[in-house]
Amino acid sequence: MVDFALDPRLAGDTFSVAKLSLSRLLLMNDARFPWLILVPQRVGIREFHELTPLDQTMLTFEIATVSENLKALTGCHKLNVAALGNQVAQLHVHVIARQTDDAAWPNPVWGSGNAEPYLPDAAADFIAAFNDSF
Amino acid sequence: MVDFALDPRLAGDTFSVAKLSLSRLLLMNDARFPWLILVPQRVGIREFHELTPLDQTMLTFEIATVSENLKALTGCHKLNVAALGNQVAQLHVHVIARQTDDAAWPNPVWGSGNAEPYLPDAAADFIAAFNDSF
Repeated sequence: MVDFALDPRLAGDTFSVAKLSLSRLLLMNDARFPWLILVPQRVGIREFHELTPLDQTMLTFEIATVSENLKALTGCHKLNVAALGNQVAQLHVHVIARQTDDAAWPNPVWGSGNAEPYLPDAAADFIAAFNDSF
Repeated sequence: MVDFALDPRLAGDTFSVAKLSLSRLLLMNDARFPWLILVPQRVGIREFHELTPLDQTMLTFEIATVSENLKALTGCHKLNVAALGNQVAQLHVHVIARQTDDAAWPNPVWGSGNAEPYLPDAAADFIAAFNDSF
């Protein structure tokens, strides 16, 4: 049996926020956008429909919960929720808070300019505020 | 009571494929990518988490079913599944079959070049093949 391991690129680009029932919750290290990522802790899954029906339901619940809390915390105009996986095969779901004056609006965030890493305290502060919102 | 009406921009950019239990299923009029869109037939919903829990589960089921069939039909390398809504507020979920030699790979399809409309027969053929796959 192979244990779940977070993809090294996802690990390198993010901070750890929490372990949920199904997913690791990560914060993308890009201070331009409040940008969370859910990674179901299952081995060898690339597509949403490859998850078992129960895991699909759990992931749906976690997406909705994270979305609602991120919207409440940021007061964002719109959420972007997406599983792309063109660059990193391990199934991961982006939940991104978008504002109409952010660096990429109205375009998607992927490929839009360069990431601006958080100052260490800023990331920790965001993570603490997010976890307090549950 | 207000009846559900498909957003005019979504209607103008797509062909109708089917009415599922919850969602209208549409084909984006861009022959570069096999690109389906699910639109839950609910009034005034902008975000996934605004759906009722039952509707969230139904949409999840419809996304998984459409994904599995689109992958089987196209033999795609990867699916992109996304609810963005930066341009059209009405909640809609993209399910796009991606190939490693397609016009945008490895980037997202949104904002990548210009759509190439289907020849009428080609869209009808795709829709017939997709509906036969259920």
